[in-house]
Amino acid sequence: MLTLYSAPATCALASHIALEQAGADYRVERVDFKSSQQRSPEYLKLNPRGRVPALVTEHGVLTETPAILLYIAQRFPEARLAPFDDPWALGQLNAFCSYLCSTVHVAHAHGRRGARWADDPAAWEAMKAKVPQTVGDGFAMIETEFFKGPWVMGERYTLADPYLYTLATWMEGDGVDPARFPKVAEHRSRMAALPAVQKVLAAEA
Amino acid sequence: MLTLYSAPATCALASHIALEQAGADYRVERVDFKSSQQRSPEYLKLNPRGRVPALVTEHGVLTETPAILLYIAQRFPEARLAPFDDPWALGQLNAFCSYLCSTVHVAHAHGRRGARWADDPAAWEAMKAKVPQTVGDGFAMIETEFFKGPWVMGERYTLADPYLYTLATWMEGDGVDPARFPKVAEHRSRMAALPAVQKVLAAEA
Ligand SMILES: N[C@@H](CCC(=O)N[C@@H](CS)C(=O)NCC(=O)O)C(=O)O
Ligand SMILES: N[C@@H](CCC(=O)N[C@@H](CS)C(=O)NCC(=O)O)C(=O)O
Repeated sequence: MLTLYSAPATCALASHIALEQAGADYRVERVDFKSSQQRSPEYLKLNPRGRVPALVTEHGVLTETPAILLYIAQRFPEARLAPFDDPWALGQLNAFCSYLCSTVHVAHAHGRRGARWADDPAAWEAMKAKVPQTVGDGFAMIETEFFKGPWVMGERYTLADPYLYTLATWMEGDGVDPARFPKVAEHRSRMAALPAVQKVLAAEA
Repeated sequence: MLTLYSAPATCALASHIALEQAGADYRVERVDFKSSQQRSPEYLKLNPRGRVPALVTEHGVLTETPAILLYIAQRFPEARLAPFDDPWALGQLNAFCSYLCSTVHVAHAHGRRGARWADDPAAWEAMKAKVPQTVGDGFAMIETEFFKGPWVMGERYTLADPYLYTLATWMEGDGVDPARFPKVAEHRSRMAALPAVQKVLAAEA
């Protein structure tokens, strides 16, 4: 049994969808951000980084979305969520996930978590003001460079799809117009219609 | 033949060391940051993100340090740089690399690349002021949580080692005292003494 520590409308959604699509035996523990439960002593014992997602396995706790997604893919090979037999295809998949994690997600975080990188509230405002541009630049890069279609990596659905979907649901909140990115927007609609995604969204609500 | 696009004293050092240790047939193309070559039309054609590292393979161009490192490990299995046969061990390795990429490297970048996330020069100063704390927090997390010893992942040397080494060489420049992190500091010295690392550092100089 795997346990995913998650909070609604966060990047943990990607891991939640992947677990569902992998057919894993899992349950979800909700971390209450409103009461800052992610910084409680109990949660910090589980994940000293104080973030979600965290996946509790029989071996220990795994963090970091790209690592959790690839772990799910490798542990449930019949779901074929990653091309482990093809180093070049796996490399491209990893590059995409790393870009989402280290650039697009980080750009988004500057709109609400400026205190991570500066102590001055005026700096938080300056960061917030630039989010529509930086997140928009990230999606422009995805639209023109990474996205192969019909799925992110091409013909085959992979773990890159729930990850992109998750970050794409943040666009409007970041002041980015999805109409600028027709491929990403169409992908988002198609993902939202998948039964596994609908089930996970219902569980989050 | 693989070609690594690199610039001295950047995160590309990790991929350079991994190529050397893998016994790969490779060459290095230097990107001149002083003349902003990373934003030249020629380089942007190769890597539209305008960053290093970028690894040119016979299939195409791969970006993102964690993806490049894992690609090298998978392509040169005899170097045993990643435990592909053990999902849990691979997951922990990926989590570590993702943490370096999305948190420690990003914290470091706020000291010199504030313009990525804000347009206001006062905000850049506020970001710069917090770098010793955020980068220090990152190394504290590595020292107490991630680092197993004698190598990052334990008994077996992996691609996590050149990646940690690379970021650890930035500590003093980020106002972080390595003496606070004895395991990371000892690892850094041990890495610096490896013939492959010395060869790569000489090539960078
Ligand atoms: N690099 C990590 C980032 C995790 C992360 O920042 N999660 C956010 C939610 S999207 C969080 O837990 N934030 C809580 C906080 O900052 O207090 C990953 O990709 O998993
Ligand atoms: N997430 C990327 C980040 C790459 C990156 O930011 N590289 C820096 C050097 S450490 C760079 O090329 N900076 C040039 C610039 O910002 O113009 C990775 O891990 O490879």
